[in-house]
Amino acid sequence: MNAEIIAVGTELLLGDILNTNAQFLSKQLSDMGIDVFFQSVVGDNNERLKQTVHTAIGRSDITILSGGLGPTDDDLTKEMVAEYFGLPLVFHQDIADGINAYLKGNMPKSNLKQANIPEGAKILQNDFGTAPGVLIERDGKVVVLLPGPPRELEPMFSNHVKPLLEGKTPFTIVSRTLRLFGIGESSVQEQIKDLMAGANPTVAPYAKSNETTLRITAKCKSTDEADTLIDGMEQQIRARLGQYIYGYGEMGLAETVTRRLIERNITIATAESCTGGLLAGAITDVPGASGIFREGVVTYSNDAKRKYLGVREETLARVGAVSEETAREMAEGIAARAGSDIGVGITGVAGPDGGTADKPVGLVYVAVCFRGNTTVRRCMTYGDRAKVRHASVMHAMDVIRKLLDD
Amino acid sequence: MNAEIIAVGTELLLGDILNTNAQFLSKQLSDMGIDVFFQSVVGDNNERLKQTVHTAIGRSDITILSGGLGPTDDDLTKEMVAEYFGLPLVFHQDIADGINAYLKGNMPKSNLKQANIPEGAKILQNDFGTAPGVLIERDGKVVVLLPGPPRELEPMFSNHVKPLLEGKTPFTIVSRTLRLFGIGESSVQEQIKDLMAGANPTVAPYAKSNETTLRITAKCKSTDEADTLIDGMEQQIRARLGQYIYGYGEMGLAETVTRRLIERNITIATAESCTGGLLAGAITDVPGASGIFREGVVTYSNDAKRKYLGVREETLARVGAVSEETAREMAEGIAARAGSDIGVGITGVAGPDGGTADKPVGLVYVAVCFRGNTTVRRCMTYGDRAKVRHASVMHAMDVIRKLLDD
Repeated sequence: MNAEIIAVGTELLLGDILNTNAQFLSKQLSDMGIDVFFQSVVGDNNERLKQTVHTAIGRSDITILSGGLGPTDDDLTKEMVAEYFGLPLVFHQDIADGINAYLKGNMPKSNLKQANIPEGAKILQNDFGTAPGVLIERDGKVVVLLPGPPRELEPMFSNHVKPLLEGKTPFTIVSRTLRLFGIGESSVQEQIKDLMAGANPTVAPYAKSNETTLRITAKCKSTDEADTLIDGMEQQIRARLGQYIYGYGEMGLAETVTRRLIERNITIATAESCTGGLLAGAITDVPGASGIFREGVVTYSNDAKRKYLGVREETLARVGAVSEETAREMAEGIAARAGSDIGVGITGVAGPDGGTADKPVGLVYVAVCFRGNTTVRRCMTYGDRAKVRHASVMHAMDVIRKLLDD
Repeated sequence: MNAEIIAVGTELLLGDILNTNAQFLSKQLSDMGIDVFFQSVVGDNNERLKQTVHTAIGRSDITILSGGLGPTDDDLTKEMVAEYFGLPLVFHQDIADGINAYLKGNMPKSNLKQANIPEGAKILQNDFGTAPGVLIERDGKVVVLLPGPPRELEPMFSNHVKPLLEGKTPFTIVSRTLRLFGIGESSVQEQIKDLMAGANPTVAPYAKSNETTLRITAKCKSTDEADTLIDGMEQQIRARLGQYIYGYGEMGLAETVTRRLIERNITIATAESCTGGLLAGAITDVPGASGIFREGVVTYSNDAKRKYLGVREETLARVGAVSEETAREMAEGIAARAGSDIGVGITGVAGPDGGTADKPVGLVYVAVCFRGNTTVRRCMTYGDRAKVRHASVMHAMDVIRKLLDD
């Protein structure tokens, strides 16, 4: 079964508001196993609305329209759909009474229009506004008309439309998202091309900023059956890409690692150069971080690196601030100073200036001293200053994650 | 002239992400005087993409597509549009070289596909990713292909597409955005309701995270004429809201203030508690900040506040860590320690836990010591942990801005 979503409203075409209704409805329908093939937006214009509505009902099993149910003359949706099916509009006194009660007896005459319903249609009650929704089933098609405001549309869909549509789909759709760091979207695809070719479950990669996610989706008669298919696919993916997979769902790498530190009560302190406080910021973004975050320093200058961290003059003179040795001494220095289980040192060239042939923009050293043992990762990161800095924080979190896993 | 926007991507149809590109492009086109008649979303499916692209190009003067330019096999947009116009795809070695350079010589083979361009099309440079954009003008139609990620699409449109489209409209639309901090959108609206009622120039407020912007737009035959209208309107707005206006355009408060510090060579050091490094992160986000950012410390614990900043035991015991006095001692302590012109201290309750009746979640003290004189602002901020932390950084920047203006 497939569906199409049409939002009616000039304010969407002007870019004044985001089309959150399309996202809400798409997610709800996908979760029910109904494929959404198209979304569209059209203004309050007779001819263009007609063209869009006719195309949609013609090609889709289910058409859901939002907006255009208001009391004003340019609210046309209901009239358009009634005309499509050749249904007359019938005035419902009880709806008019309900609207008048909702408006505390002050209903303007224009609202009477909202009490007209295409003959034989199901009326969907609006608990948060005046416009009732409408559901028409005819000629093997389902057409649903919902009010535009999200606070009216969302409860109306969940309470009155979803139960009706659920009865029409024999399938359950279950999705699981794997989160990967350290490998790009195209490399992921190269390694699991054969797995991505399957029809059930499907596997789709998405690039996020400095990471990749893999979404496994199964369409089955029961949740158990879907889970079994997804488990099997996850195992196959893990056999090839396991080292890059750090978590599931919506939680990013920084939060995943910080939560593990909190759970295991492992304390941390940070010494940052090129990331300038972003690592400390990412850790302390997680509620409860105050229990494990000891302290952080941002040491841009060599002077501050010596003063706060005890980085040696000789090291800075011999190999420079952006080097494995300096990162190591920063990590060990802050761990000793803070008395924490983990000390992190980050030093690199964030750009746009300051790069050389030996040490180009994007080169970053991340050192993690964990209970006396120090690991240093040399990272070549890509993109502009913001992207390099963000990638550096991700690498630091990734080094910690691997140390915790060992 | 009219336009249509097509976003290509299954993740939109699944409801995983919001279609922010449609909003951005609609707004930009409307501002140029180009009417957007349709937006649509279609997945990475050959037949349905073809149907959508053919309908759009057939009925619209300008068709803008986003997404589907990636390196994977289900990225089809370019191939589809080339086929529509009967144009062969031509491989560009220089684009492949550019992508390889962007990826530091590690380009996977699949990226080669991104170097194929329809014959005769204009290539739009991507400064923030690998996929170049494409602009085709043919048979009186304009078709533009842009990458999907907003951070690549937005600058590409603004820098490379907008100037070309502007040449095609008889009017010049000129916009100027004023940026305000310290006053909400609805208060702004109340104070300039009369000015917002005008037709040319128009004035529209937008709420951004923790700030408000005011966009003044004039539609005239010449840029000079538009500038004169806008200048007049800006003067009227400044007479009422001048104290809140800190800048123009796309540059936020943190960058605006940091650039002023760099220009005037005023050095700064930071001591953060509840913001956990975000202030240091915001300053060092600006290229050239290394010249003025001396050092930063993140002192969550009382112990660290004493050790790094010399906050007095007595102060902490008497009024607590979240207090005017502690913020003051933090600011003065870090300025003394770093030998900087400015020292900033931030301490507050970011939540979600830790609030009391006296010191609720959202209460933050920001202290700025500027050449020996210290100013403390008590801020009541709203929202969740992330919003409180962000607002605290904004307040610190705002205090510095006012001190620099004096």
